[in-house]
Amino acid sequence: MHKVIFDTDPGVDDAMALLFLHQHPEIDLIGITTVFGNASVETTTRNALFLKREWQIDAPVAKGIPETFDPARAHAAWPTFVHGEDGLGNIGVPETIDLPIDPRPAHRFIIETVHAHPGEVTLIAVGRMTNLARALKEDPGIIGLVKAVIIMGGAFDTNGNVNPAAEANIHGDPEAADAVFTAAWPVTVVGLDVTTKTVMTRADLAAIVERGGARTQLLSDISQFYIDFYETRVPDGMLVHDSCACVYLVAPELFTIRKGAMRVVCGGIADGQTIQKPDDLGCGPSVWDGLPSQAACMEIDAPAVLKLVADTLARTGV
Amino acid sequence: MHKVIFDTDPGVDDAMALLFLHQHPEIDLIGITTVFGNASVETTTRNALFLKREWQIDAPVAKGIPETFDPARAHAAWPTFVHGEDGLGNIGVPETIDLPIDPRPAHRFIIETVHAHPGEVTLIAVGRMTNLARALKEDPGIIGLVKAVIIMGGAFDTNGNVNPAAEANIHGDPEAADAVFTAAWPVTVVGLDVTTKTVMTRADLAAIVERGGARTQLLSDISQFYIDFYETRVPDGMLVHDSCACVYLVAPELFTIRKGAMRVVCGGIADGQTIQKPDDLGCGPSVWDGLPSQAACMEIDAPAVLKLVADTLARTGV
Repeated sequence: MHKVIFDTDPGVDDAMALLFLHQHPEIDLIGITTVFGNASVETTTRNALFLKREWQIDAPVAKGIPETFDPARAHAAWPTFVHGEDGLGNIGVPETIDLPIDPRPAHRFIIETVHAHPGEVTLIAVGRMTNLARALKEDPGIIGLVKAVIIMGGAFDTNGNVNPAAEANIHGDPEAADAVFTAAWPVTVVGLDVTTKTVMTRADLAAIVERGGARTQLLSDISQFYIDFYETRVPDGMLVHDSCACVYLVAPELFTIRKGAMRVVCGGIADGQTIQKPDDLGCGPSVWDGLPSQAACMEIDAPAVLKLVADTLARTGV
Repeated sequence: MHKVIFDTDPGVDDAMALLFLHQHPEIDLIGITTVFGNASVETTTRNALFLKREWQIDAPVAKGIPETFDPARAHAAWPTFVHGEDGLGNIGVPETIDLPIDPRPAHRFIIETVHAHPGEVTLIAVGRMTNLARALKEDPGIIGLVKAVIIMGGAFDTNGNVNPAAEANIHGDPEAADAVFTAAWPVTVVGLDVTTKTVMTRADLAAIVERGGARTQLLSDISQFYIDFYETRVPDGMLVHDSCACVYLVAPELFTIRKGAMRVVCGGIADGQTIQKPDDLGCGPSVWDGLPSQAACMEIDAPAVLKLVADTLARTGV
């Protein structure tokens, strides 16, 4: 069993990834930590509690601090045109959810949970890297205790989605991502190089609901606004970015990785861009030298990933 | 016939490209302008005159100003480990060449020659973009008079060669390249996305010398040092970066282009990186918006390009 803390900003594709983690038989979801990004951290935390209640998830929810790693960063508007005003596709999530929340801020929850299970916890982070960076800063001792870090974010040999240079999760807190990538823990980055190949069509989603019942009906309801956003971007359906990071945990053989040090550009027109130095790249000295070699996903078996996502979401009786 | 001004910093692969331009039957080389990069502009100008003499090239040589477009840029050491101390593979180029030089600085030569042949001149620039940017700044009127601009430089969906972010020609004067890319003249960029696929082997080069005689023997002598540099970078031989830009002029069908606005990162860890916004990219507003759509070469028929280079270099009696 993989012990997982899921750091997330639900978010439509976050919701799908959460259901995947909850239902996959080899995953033990031991915590949900929330971050701002697809919406404010107030909203994403409320949404995490809502999904926890609707889907009977045991894992505690811990709320992140509503501030970028570098507090001087200017705040941009939340992407309500992607995830809706409520962050879950405008389905009308209740204003408040009457469930207890973990008393610790997200980064403290991460630190203490990692210490409680040394060498066992995988962090899957599919929002901005703020909580992870804050945990690293407050307790660098976790570096040697975390089993693995899997990130949805970034774009290496392809364009970004916020702008031509940067992907949204990294662009939203570049200093945090740079801290996470350059720490000496094993990081795998599942970014736009591969996630843009994972198109779940309307028919795929309908077939999941057919098999999966009420939980997947809610997921489908949440997803319709997001599918509308993708109308002009994919032929039919939506990209399942965040689920790809979860699939990597249980089926890494469906991805081709490239190893090398990674940095994030902070400032200027490429603010938030991810750049890897592949280990075999012949070039001059650079600020990538001497940093840990991390894994970037460069190829994906998209049909197999989509099938695994569908089969896992459609499981009943979990 | 294509009228060409060749802006160059010979440089080993520059020398090959120069011989290609001189010998191709559809190209009328009407000027050679020199820039620093592979060596100082003193050295590259001397080398241009040397090659002009050895290969009986009629085109005048005009020397560039030895200063980056932004004079505040720090100067890095010349890459003598790539092109040799003399910039031509340490073959022992004479200290001075007794040939006249055009009295105008390179950028003035470009401006006046373009005005003399409105709509007819293609600028092929295979060094830093300094002379082109200076010409643009001094006389923006040339924008509508130049037929086309073809650049060897940059790296879009692949790593750089100076460092993971940047290719050498752009990294050497990023502000100049940004000015050239964002001007409303038609630019095609032939960068590392394609040139890294054009490996001319030792056997290929030997076969060219077999057919081409004295001129190609000199080219082969010049290239040996460069081939040694590539020892650890390609299985056998060398990359013919600059010739690719010249081939594009006469055989654009051997390349697949991607259209979109281009910017160059100036400053920070990605200093000198080229980033294109493909015209069909769905993303938020950015500093790429409203800029001219330029062409980036993304695919190349490398065997056909190498064959055309070989056949052109091997021509005799030109």
